[in-house]
Amino acid sequence: MTQAVRHDAMRARNLALVLGEVGAREPVTRAALSEITGLTKTTVSKLVADLIEAGLVVETGAVRDGERGRPGVAVRISGEHVAAAGLEINVDYLAVRVVDLSRSVRLRRTQAVDNRSARPGDVAARLRDMALTAVDEAVENGLRVVGGVVAVPGPVDLSTGTLHNAPNLGWRDVPVPSLLELPFPVRVENEANLAALGELWFGPGPSDFLHVSGEIGVGAGLVVGGRLFRGTHGFAGELGHVVVSPDGPACRCGGNGCLEQYAGRDALLSAAGPTGRPTAAAGPAGRPTEYTRATGSHPTAGGMASLASLVSRLEAGDTGALAACERAGWALGVALSSAINLVDPGTIVLGGIYAPLFPWLGDVVAGTLASRLGRMRATVPPVVVSRLGSEAAALGAAGQVIQRVIADPAASLQA
Amino acid sequence: MTQAVRHDAMRARNLALVLGEVGAREPVTRAALSEITGLTKTTVSKLVADLIEAGLVVETGAVRDGERGRPGVAVRISGEHVAAAGLEINVDYLAVRVVDLSRSVRLRRTQAVDNRSARPGDVAARLRDMALTAVDEAVENGLRVVGGVVAVPGPVDLSTGTLHNAPNLGWRDVPVPSLLELPFPVRVENEANLAALGELWFGPGPSDFLHVSGEIGVGAGLVVGGRLFRGTHGFAGELGHVVVSPDGPACRCGGNGCLEQYAGRDALLSAAGPTGRPTAAAGPAGRPTEYTRATGSHPTAGGMASLASLVSRLEAGDTGALAACERAGWALGVALSSAINLVDPGTIVLGGIYAPLFPWLGDVVAGTLASRLGRMRATVPPVVVSRLGSEAAALGAAGQVIQRVIADPAASLQA
Repeated sequence: MTQAVRHDAMRARNLALVLGEVGAREPVTRAALSEITGLTKTTVSKLVADLIEAGLVVETGAVRDGERGRPGVAVRISGEHVAAAGLEINVDYLAVRVVDLSRSVRLRRTQAVDNRSARPGDVAARLRDMALTAVDEAVENGLRVVGGVVAVPGPVDLSTGTLHNAPNLGWRDVPVPSLLELPFPVRVENEANLAALGELWFGPGPSDFLHVSGEIGVGAGLVVGGRLFRGTHGFAGELGHVVVSPDGPACRCGGNGCLEQYAGRDALLSAAGPTGRPTAAAGPAGRPTEYTRATGSHPTAGGMASLASLVSRLEAGDTGALAACERAGWALGVALSSAINLVDPGTIVLGGIYAPLFPWLGDVVAGTLASRLGRMRATVPPVVVSRLGSEAAALGAAGQVIQRVIADPAASLQA
Repeated sequence: MTQAVRHDAMRARNLALVLGEVGAREPVTRAALSEITGLTKTTVSKLVADLIEAGLVVETGAVRDGERGRPGVAVRISGEHVAAAGLEINVDYLAVRVVDLSRSVRLRRTQAVDNRSARPGDVAARLRDMALTAVDEAVENGLRVVGGVVAVPGPVDLSTGTLHNAPNLGWRDVPVPSLLELPFPVRVENEANLAALGELWFGPGPSDFLHVSGEIGVGAGLVVGGRLFRGTHGFAGELGHVVVSPDGPACRCGGNGCLEQYAGRDALLSAAGPTGRPTAAAGPAGRPTEYTRATGSHPTAGGMASLASLVSRLEAGDTGALAACERAGWALGVALSSAINLVDPGTIVLGGIYAPLFPWLGDVVAGTLASRLGRMRATVPPVVVSRLGSEAAALGAAGQVIQRVIADPAASLQA
């Protein structure tokens, strides 16, 4: 290793060290950073100057130094220059979120569209249009989008970004990044993992939880000590195929009685029984649910409309709808009792479609857990609702880009 | 921090660094250690001298240095001085293993005894006798037992060593270390976790696996990337209470149809139907199973004798016994398919009583996994038998002491 290479590596490490501490302690003075990192004040000042020049850090007003009580100019993560794109391809919507480096959400776009009948290239083209429009808007606000992550409903080869298999889209081995051709680096990751990370970084909750993403499939992301658990091949969290009843309905996975057959969106809607055409209240213009805003010119896809309709029926006390939720909640409780026994999460966070359905699901899930676990365990993990709902995955996607910038600011400085 | 304290901390860190590299690369020369660690040759020589004096490292013959081809005197972990005690309290046996620092098993003692009717104090007294005898024998062989870990069948408060709850022993909140009063520091840990670590450190297998401990209860230990996954409170791995069928037989945990009710030892023996008195072949003198040797003067406890008897019946083609194994294997397959979907292990290792039963269980488990997972996953994790069987937990217990010595040799030098 030459001296120059060694020096570059050391500078990169120190930039990351300082930026990481700024993120963890902001606002923080240069003097405090020197004390925390063990680097000299001169070195810290030089590194902070570089980070300010790169738009990653910004000076804030004078603060009192916690230790000594002397006032000083502090710095914090800058939300004014660098931004990340969180993208999502789901079965019946596409989503884009632009988030700045200080984790403020700057732009939200969701387009309801039925991707079940669509080819990967067409879906990618539509998502690219949405992303490019969002990037333009970000530029107008002085932001530079430095990278993106795409949330997809299936397992992904993290090194290539290939989506292995998304049964609910009917896709196999789709090279998502090359289809998107965006003007910034793009990675791809499973939606359930990203939703859990979204909950970790953007939610109000704890750092030990199992986040359940209710969609057509049911995914889960386990976060322990603030870290996502991926398993050996990155395929952990397939809660939808945990066995509820081994003689239950056949599942597309080859098994029988998987959770998805009781509590997946289609199973739930089908159990609720026939409903009329979506009412006016179910459309995106009429009654946007709290957790996401459907926008754009495309017609409302069946799934989202049906879900809104189900919520209306539940509010009206429709017995079929209530019974379907009761059954789904029981099945969730059975599958989650297995999950709790296996992975010992601190909290259960119900997200995705379970967020708007929480008033009719939450107690059934918690009751089933209490009856199945209460005798063995002093405390049964609490069941809470995700504040992010279906937005969690796209936010987690943007958050992953931000994490990378903060972990390796030297790469951003070069770009 | 004073200069002296700072120096001690640095020396402790460097001792651990050097000893860790010796363990990972042995035999290895001082020159190679200097290159790997970045410490000067003088510093490495001084640290190695201290480690040799403490009996943790020993010089071996001259080896060729991998990089340069020059011959040099290498060092390796010493198996001649420092040893660890692995202890186990199980429902129907007590076990002691003494393992030296180079991970050679130096002494094995297993005593069949029915602890279900026994008070904690009496069981502890018996285990203490076994341990003290083993320590005496170790001393005669020039070994010093520097610490012990006790494997127990239930969740443990790791900070105090209190066994919270061992339903199969009928124990609650038992302060195991203070009952044992051994002449070395003792920690306590759940047997399923230790069995997985035993498999990692003493087994032939990979470093990503789910180890299943079949006993009266069914525990599991998940190892990913060579690290044990404990969950949020350390209670992960309760495979025995994963749901096989939600309407199945009532379980002591409060649930219904838990795996333990199909594949736990008592459930399995009871499903196999009545058998006569244990045959001569079933006793410890007659036909020790391969995976453990029962010794000592106490009578064979019911459980171990019955298991040996079950194996005899299976070998003789007894239909009741075969049907019971088929059912247990199917239930294991159902519960493991849930576990694989949730935690994505690389391999399934069947241990404990499933080791001797593997010829009659293994194919049924693998077949159930293939039919439930095969359509979704390109590869289903292989199902293999533990080479350690019921010895895994006690070996993992000793291994944990060894890990601690290697991670913090300065503490051993002081003692």
